Amino acid sequence: MRDEKLDPTAIAAGLSTLEGWVLAPGEDAILRDFTFRNFREAFGFMTQCALCAEKLDHHPEWKNVYATVSVRLTTHDCGGLSERDFKLARMFDKAAAQRN
Amino acid sequence: MRDEKLDPTAIAAGLSTLEGWVLAPGEDAILRDFTFRNFREAFGFMTQCALCAEKLDHHPEWKNVYATVSVRLTTHDCGGLSERDFKLARMFDKAAAQRN
Amino acid sequence: MRDEKLDPTAIAAGLSTLEGWVLAPGEDAILRDFTFRNFREAFGFMTQCALCAEKLDHHPEWKNVYATVSVRLTTHDCGGLSERDFKLARMFDKAAAQRN
Amino acid sequence: MRDEKLDPTAIAAGLSTLEGWVLAPGEDAILRDFTFRNFREAFGFMTQCALCAEKLDHHPEWKNVYATVSVRLTTHDCGGLSERDFKLARMFDKAAAQRN
Repeated sequence: MRDEKLDPTAIAAGLSTLEGWVLAPGEDAILRDFTFRNFREAFGFMTQCALCAEKLDHHPEWKNVYATVSVRLTTHDCGGLSERDFKLARMFDKAAAQRN
Repeated sequence: MRDEKLDPTAIAAGLSTLEGWVLAPGEDAILRDFTFRNFREAFGFMTQCALCAEKLDHHPEWKNVYATVSVRLTTHDCGGLSERDFKLARMFDKAAAQRN
Repeated sequence: MRDEKLDPTAIAAGLSTLEGWVLAPGEDAILRDFTFRNFREAFGFMTQCALCAEKLDHHPEWKNVYATVSVRLTTHDCGGLSERDFKLARMFDKAAAQRN
Repeated sequence: MRDEKLDPTAIAAGLSTLEGWVLAPGEDAILRDFTFRNFREAFGFMTQCALCAEKLDHHPEWKNVYATVSVRLTTHDCGGLSERDFKLARMFDKAAAQRN
């Protein structure tokens, strides 16, 4: 099943369900940075999210520098943002919210 | 530097700094089970703890069944429990306490 | 969809497609040990296999002691071995065969 | 102990011990991309390398997009490249060479 590209209204609605994600300027992608206390916590978070991504069969573009994980989500198949980006973003948010 | 084997008094003192660890019956080892909501959370925890273990150069014997991680710590070099077991146990406790 | 419990003929056929797995004595489960050079290699292997498991939605019972990973597969839903155990076992074999 | 910043001759010597790393244009950093068959293999590799990094207490800047891992190494403490960058780079190379 092909992912459907969301229109601006649906994207705005999707963003309102997330915490701290923004639209990438001039791009159909959403971005969020997560910061932890050290590399071990950041990479434990990444592993939990990697398992979410594999389960959803939808993968992030992400960068890690020590305690920070910068995530960019987009759907190549539809050339824009799809429901799967927001589903994966909510899993990232949930994994972050579980940590203190 | 060789690890020093702790005596029963030191072991009791060490256990009092931990949460929920017990002495393995008839063995010089300490045990604790950690339970999470699902496999992804359990394995994210394991990865964070694996990084702690590698940093300490002291590794657990651990078993994972879905959302549960069962840990056994002992120090082969000294044929008993050493300070390193308690140090690693505290890192496990800390990683668990950070999650809700 | 419920997993179907395999009969002894199907189990024997399944085992013949695997490398080094054995039936657990007196149990409907299959077992294999994997040994690596160090903890880092063992845990990298575990992470790749954890991602396979999550994708298949079928999880191993596994134990890690430094460079060794001992795996036990069974399917609780059907009270025995199912096709999913053999599918996951083949993924473990493939991940091990990719390493030298 | 503070890391010593390597001079161009030492950097050239270090690069000659590595496989496929290049100097970042106009920067004191080295770069290499690693490509695998899928996300699971890429992330298993990352986890093994994360354990190497934590052991060395020296961490990469790295980006993952599905099956590709792009690594950038530099040493902030010395404002350039140090021996630790080359040590970590060799561990990345070794982990990649172990996979087929």
